[in-house]
Amino acid sequence: MKFAVRPRAVHLLLAIDLVGTALFAAEGASTAAQARLDLLGMLVLAFVTALGGGIVRDLLIGDIPPGAIRNWNYAAVALATGGAVFVLRASTAGVNHWLVTTLDAAGLSFFAVAGATKALDFKLNPLLATMMGGITGVGGGTIRDLLIGQVPKVLRSDVYAAAALFGAAITILCLKLKVNAAAASGCGILGCFVLRMLAVYLHWNLPGAGGS
Amino acid sequence: MKFAVRPRAVHLLLAIDLVGTALFAAEGASTAAQARLDLLGMLVLAFVTALGGGIVRDLLIGDIPPGAIRNWNYAAVALATGGAVFVLRASTAGVNHWLVTTLDAAGLSFFAVAGATKALDFKLNPLLATMMGGITGVGGGTIRDLLIGQVPKVLRSDVYAAAALFGAAITILCLKLKVNAAAASGCGILGCFVLRMLAVYLHWNLPGAGGS
Amino acid sequence: MKFAVRPRAVHLLLAIDLVGTALFAAEGASTAAQARLDLLGMLVLAFVTALGGGIVRDLLIGDIPPGAIRNWNYAAVALATGGAVFVLRASTAGVNHWLVTTLDAAGLSFFAVAGATKALDFKLNPLLATMMGGITGVGGGTIRDLLIGQVPKVLRSDVYAAAALFGAAITILCLKLKVNAAAASGCGILGCFVLRMLAVYLHWNLPGAGGS
Repeated sequence: MKFAVRPRAVHLLLAIDLVGTALFAAEGASTAAQARLDLLGMLVLAFVTALGGGIVRDLLIGDIPPGAIRNWNYAAVALATGGAVFVLRASTAGVNHWLVTTLDAAGLSFFAVAGATKALDFKLNPLLATMMGGITGVGGGTIRDLLIGQVPKVLRSDVYAAAALFGAAITILCLKLKVNAAAASGCGILGCFVLRMLAVYLHWNLPGAGGS
Repeated sequence: MKFAVRPRAVHLLLAIDLVGTALFAAEGASTAAQARLDLLGMLVLAFVTALGGGIVRDLLIGDIPPGAIRNWNYAAVALATGGAVFVLRASTAGVNHWLVTTLDAAGLSFFAVAGATKALDFKLNPLLATMMGGITGVGGGTIRDLLIGQVPKVLRSDVYAAAALFGAAITILCLKLKVNAAAASGCGILGCFVLRMLAVYLHWNLPGAGGS
Repeated sequence: MKFAVRPRAVHLLLAIDLVGTALFAAEGASTAAQARLDLLGMLVLAFVTALGGGIVRDLLIGDIPPGAIRNWNYAAVALATGGAVFVLRASTAGVNHWLVTTLDAAGLSFFAVAGATKALDFKLNPLLATMMGGITGVGGGTIRDLLIGQVPKVLRSDVYAAAALFGAAITILCLKLKVNAAAASGCGILGCFVLRMLAVYLHWNLPGAGGS
């Protein structure tokens, strides 16, 4: 990611990024445990869940090799997290639901905004940069679901990908309006996070095509 | 796409391309409605069905970012079509079977020929350029089927991908024989379209491996 | 692949590579026959099983267009093998189990080592180069399984991807220790092959997350 921020903030953002990676990796490894995969399956799902979205985005915007392939930090964090989940026989299944939801919403928000910002840096049109934000946020989970033979949750479930797109759109709108980069990111992250949490709390769903 | 044709024809071809995109997007959104996905799922499947094949082709031939990511027209048409299907509660399910089949065959023909031509422009070998034509034609539907948890129809069903490959091969053969580009495209499109329609009308299938 | 070896050895390695391609293609076509796909489905699965892993690796390391798209030899071998399986109504199902297992382990070993070596040539970090070796070895089979609607075997089954990663890691370790390239490849191939065969013979499995 390239944020137009000062060096100290860059370190902070890398730290947040790696924390988000670890969180998504833990979710992927937990899913693998629930699907009764072996150690290798847990590592694969940890990697894919945490980094798959960003890798697909980077392929599409032309940042090749993708950042998660070029910089070993990401893979190391994802695999170490997956390994830790295995060793500790940990699983998000046993953790407080709201804690998991909150952390996941935070990770989603950061990934979506970071992805949209990067896509804009690569000269993508705002419409497609917003989509790249969505892909960054939910792409990893989508690949994970496909690998374990399930219809991706994001295609069905409550406001999740929509929240990612919302946060990405806010950030891009702010940047186009010449808002300071840090403020634009902050607004997008907040927008995605609040929408996601409200949706879970209030059981919001997007309208379906089938009617009822 | 790059056709060696006059400017006026370029506009015509872009128009045809966008019409094909809209048609495939409508099919994708209809599939989403039948799978009872929500609005976002409809938009995702509309986008993927219409543009997934071309995106995969562009990644493979090295035209990165893919045309459908670089040029926002394609995404806008696909998403608008998906949205229209949602708003109108429309679905190809209620439309005359032969109309859908005919339009779909037309879209398939154009995508396959355009994909093969582009691959040849990127210096691919004729064998692989033909395959790229096939991927352009059926790749989007394949990804759509995977996303909703179904074995891709093209792997099982009647002459569909085969028609795309046939049209792509005709075009490439013509171009290698120094036939005028527009004529080569026309022959390929016609070949794919006729083969596809005949196959549906006469219930042709490729021979299976299992025998009977 | 780029091995730092003499011209004669290059021909030998290309030959081995194409033999590995043919073997994996035969397995893919056999899977298609068992899934009762038609001729086209057999060709698709032959191509994907044999070349899918290398194509994904090449996209990720930035060798675009991927070698299997640039050089028609690979596609021709894969498709011809798929066609031969169809014509002969052959299937690995009828072949001695140990012969298939041994040849498959040989192909896996070569692909994993070749993939890791290539990734290192493209300046990837050793950790990620090892992963690229694993993807080269098992990526094609993973895509094949997804296409026919199955959870990829490598996520569940006995030591298979782990053997590929082991061979890749040995090769990379040797190369980092300045071992001669041919010797490094040899050690990696041998390590992967022996581990895989022992795992099948002794019914080894990686530990699962569920315990028992």
